[in-house]
Amino acid sequence: MPHITIPPEQMPGTPGLMNYRQDTGRPLSQLAEVLLRGPHSLTPAERELIAARVSGTNDCKFCLYTHSEVSAQQHPEGRALVDKVLADYESAPISPKLKALLRIADAANVSGKSVTAELVADAREAGADDTEIHDTVLIAAAFGMYNRYCDGLAAVVPEDPSSYVPMAAMIIREGYSQCATGH
Amino acid sequence: MPHITIPPEQMPGTPGLMNYRQDTGRPLSQLAEVLLRGPHSLTPAERELIAARVSGTNDCKFCLYTHSEVSAQQHPEGRALVDKVLADYESAPISPKLKALLRIADAANVSGKSVTAELVADAREAGADDTEIHDTVLIAAAFGMYNRYCDGLAAVVPEDPSSYVPMAAMIIREGYSQCATGH
Repeated sequence: MPHITIPPEQMPGTPGLMNYRQDTGRPLSQLAEVLLRGPHSLTPAERELIAARVSGTNDCKFCLYTHSEVSAQQHPEGRALVDKVLADYESAPISPKLKALLRIADAANVSGKSVTAELVADAREAGADDTEIHDTVLIAAAFGMYNRYCDGLAAVVPEDPSSYVPMAAMIIREGYSQCATGH
Repeated sequence: MPHITIPPEQMPGTPGLMNYRQDTGRPLSQLAEVLLRGPHSLTPAERELIAARVSGTNDCKFCLYTHSEVSAQQHPEGRALVDKVLADYESAPISPKLKALLRIADAANVSGKSVTAELVADAREAGADDTEIHDTVLIAAAFGMYNRYCDGLAAVVPEDPSSYVPMAAMIIREGYSQCATGH
């Protein structure tokens, strides 16, 4: 049961919270929209993987299930690849650049100062540019926020992974901005 | 030196990063504006104290210096009270409600699941309502993000505390939204 009174007809998880308080929900959903779906050299599926990885480390089930499913539905290699990355990205069949960015995300999730010049140099060596490095740090930092927001208010978390399938499809179709519009 | 190329004429800290990438800077600055300065039953000085407390725990000097100064300039008891709260809020001369909310913020800064029903019940007992509890969790979660963003990209952090005085005055005068407008 949530720590605050969220109407039961509200969506579960973070979207329900964003709708509950739309003044904060709007910038929160716009941030997710730009970071995960805006024009970018990393695909939406790759950026969603970074979000899912951080959420898994932080044990936020709602964000892990949501963003791994949004990644899987958009990734050419689907759920099998996403599961491999979440289990052990170092051995997963992804680019050296994405591995280097995931290492930066892991570090940023621990603390800002854990993102060392060496981790950044390794990512550049693997082909990452300034925007990719910037956005990886910010995706990790932002999901540290969404994870704490969701679980810190004990938002409703559907236990059945299959219930995230239509939610992910709706996000892919309509985007994150619809999370704070009262629908 | 920042991990990415930020023009040297740019503002230091998080505002410089928000200006560097305004697509993400706009929702980031709007979130701070609503959380810390929007209409509220907690004063701006009280909300800035929560932000400063979390930033101090996370050892993000830029955010600690900025938000403690913004709080001090708006608090009727000024810097002396802010320093007492940051040193040990349990013994500081603040309301039981604000102490209970600071305990929630401390817990949320560790992890979402650390915000227990008991901490929330204690805050209600001390007079906190749903919006105050919601916003305290979100301020803590958001400053976990701003702290990781600032230090994770090794943004420039002025060492001299006096340089935060005019910056805080500008924030109080013009708000956070001006941080991502290219000025």
